[in-house]
Amino acid sequence: MTGLDWLEAFRQQREAAGLRRSLHYRDPDHDGLLDLASNDYLGLQRDPRVVAAAAEAATVWGAGSGASRLVTGSTQLHRELEQELAAFTGTQSALVVSSGYLANLAVITALTTPECVIVSDASNHASIIDACRLATGQTHVVAHCDPAAFAQALSQHRGTATRDTNHLDSDHLGSDLLVTDAIFSAAGDAAPVAELADLARTSHAVLVVDEAHALGVVGHRGQGAAAAAGLLPADDIVMTATLSKALAAQGGVVMGSQAVIDHLIDAARPVIFDTALAPPSVAAALAALRIVITEPDLPNRARANAAHLAELATSMGLTVTPPDAAVVGITIGSAQDAVQARDICAEHGVRVGCFRPPSVPDGQSLLRLTARANLSEPDLARTAAALAAVARSLTGSS
Amino acid sequence: MTGLDWLEAFRQQREAAGLRRSLHYRDPDHDGLLDLASNDYLGLQRDPRVVAAAAEAATVWGAGSGASRLVTGSTQLHRELEQELAAFTGTQSALVVSSGYLANLAVITALTTPECVIVSDASNHASIIDACRLATGQTHVVAHCDPAAFAQALSQHRGTATRDTNHLDSDHLGSDLLVTDAIFSAAGDAAPVAELADLARTSHAVLVVDEAHALGVVGHRGQGAAAAAGLLPADDIVMTATLSKALAAQGGVVMGSQAVIDHLIDAARPVIFDTALAPPSVAAALAALRIVITEPDLPNRARANAAHLAELATSMGLTVTPPDAAVVGITIGSAQDAVQARDICAEHGVRVGCFRPPSVPDGQSLLRLTARANLSEPDLARTAAALAAVARSLTGSS
Repeated sequence: MTGLDWLEAFRQQREAAGLRRSLHYRDPDHDGLLDLASNDYLGLQRDPRVVAAAAEAATVWGAGSGASRLVTGSTQLHRELEQELAAFTGTQSALVVSSGYLANLAVITALTTPECVIVSDASNHASIIDACRLATGQTHVVAHCDPAAFAQALSQHRGTATRDTNHLDSDHLGSDLLVTDAIFSAAGDAAPVAELADLARTSHAVLVVDEAHALGVVGHRGQGAAAAAGLLPADDIVMTATLSKALAAQGGVVMGSQAVIDHLIDAARPVIFDTALAPPSVAAALAALRIVITEPDLPNRARANAAHLAELATSMGLTVTPPDAAVVGITIGSAQDAVQARDICAEHGVRVGCFRPPSVPDGQSLLRLTARANLSEPDLARTAAALAAVARSLTGSS
Repeated sequence: MTGLDWLEAFRQQREAAGLRRSLHYRDPDHDGLLDLASNDYLGLQRDPRVVAAAAEAATVWGAGSGASRLVTGSTQLHRELEQELAAFTGTQSALVVSSGYLANLAVITALTTPECVIVSDASNHASIIDACRLATGQTHVVAHCDPAAFAQALSQHRGTATRDTNHLDSDHLGSDLLVTDAIFSAAGDAAPVAELADLARTSHAVLVVDEAHALGVVGHRGQGAAAAAGLLPADDIVMTATLSKALAAQGGVVMGSQAVIDHLIDAARPVIFDTALAPPSVAAALAALRIVITEPDLPNRARANAAHLAELATSMGLTVTPPDAAVVGITIGSAQDAVQARDICAEHGVRVGCFRPPSVPDGQSLLRLTARANLSEPDLARTAAALAAVARSLTGSS
């Protein structure tokens, strides 16, 4: 008997619920399948310029950064990337960390104290949920994409006018946060960032927008949702993002005012106590960013391909969330049906994502297709054939 | 007025306490200083074999992994690294994640439920502390390197024999955890892993050992503290480590039984919801691991250099924790004196780490030197001169 004997019972429970997960170790060409499952929205992951930048950085700076950002892990390469990301999105400053998950943990834990409220959209990404759990503030989860629900949770927490005033006096440390994904990771729909920014401004709260699926995709230059909505620069908006999606590398970033970035360097434990992002990833993200800047048609092509795939799926009778970026979410229903639909796509030569609980609520399992900027006509035709087979299978089984 | 006006008051408080932090963006050669601050214990960060592996992986696999481990982020390269890490340390299985911080979050959150106790050494790394905060189990922080204190906290939590039995019945999900760093990050001393493994076994708890500063350094082949103590394989020991220190890359790893690794894939949110480690970092860590295996003298040289530096510092009257790996901690005292000592080292051409609260307790600020395997005689002489100047300055100021 050991302290881990319960793992077998847990495994059996998951097995019975159809929720076992296992890893598939792919080869470089995705086993010959068309990859519509990864988040390489602009198709830059193996772009020769991006690859060359990563290789050169390994030679010049080393394969790893060697230490945390505050010890010796910050290089001039990190500074270049931070300056160019801030300039691209129209913010004052940026701080690169080793993952998007840690970017959310850093911002949400470092800006709140136990008296603060964190209002969080019900469909926010797991990294935001975990950040709310780790933070000492009180979290209220509110209805999806509903600014009125954010406002209500905020006033409910603040209570009477007297408490409100106390809460906002100058001795108080910490902010009330409104937290949302810019583009929701599973369904691909957009948050009402302009309304939430208004609410933050009028209520002296802070809006935190996770631009993971928006940076490099949303807006005519791909500069993200908050920038596209004309909200930046703003002292009371903090953005997080990943460098592992449109920017084809690895890592996360926080973008906001200089005061916010300085505060994270002083106080954000997930920044202070983590090894800095490796130079090859920093250089790859920087090269990808420069490509986005010089080829502004890339974000537009990704969004156009998403619209095209959504139309295709809708015309076949599938249930599609209208895409606001490059993610196309097709709701299937049960976890079992979703797995079957994914397998049908694979039989037709297309790899798609399959999201089951806890990534999505029970009964809302879905296929997730990413419409890369570099999809060809034959790629789109192959995808159409796969989706038609999924539609036939669902009709047959209903 | 915005919701972030308090940042200025916070900044002033930190300024007054001598705790402001700022980033120094270094150039590739560490500004001409001898680098004894990074965690590149074996000096492999710019080894041509490691660099070439990173560059080749970027070409073959792409600069990023493109998705989470469960979607399309797992590559055959990840599998190779996981298999070779498990074989090297003598465990059944391994799972690579994007940072050591996330490895600790994954293990400690996924193995505990609200009924569980997590007993944690007072000097554990911040990522373990944050993992305990995020986990739903109840955390007891106990005296440093004190197995009896671990045992007492465990029995106190379990209470009466009846509760103990209930707690361990087969319907119960979750483990009681004993959590320790193998080598403590600031002072460089070793945990009593054999005694803690005994306690875990006899009490049906699970020992979690963070081998971040031990993997590649401790043991005659550098296989880490638990392996060096002859404790592996063991069903009730789970190890975490980073790939960003001796292995010169980026990322983290969990090593343990197949049942534990399978469970993390099913249930560990920091694994499921994070982009997989980038191929260049995977390949760099794999290349470094193979060098450690073929050149077993490297770990021995790192430890010998640490012993030499500690003797030097002791002979000058400095307060040194006897090093058990490659980290040499020299206790200075006040944060201000520690900063001054660091600056004196820099004036003598040596970059050392300077740990202040909250990285260490108040009044225990320290200099942290890492004794890389590839330090030369002139490097050691330069370090001796720097430490002599520090000793003179402290004598002069006392």
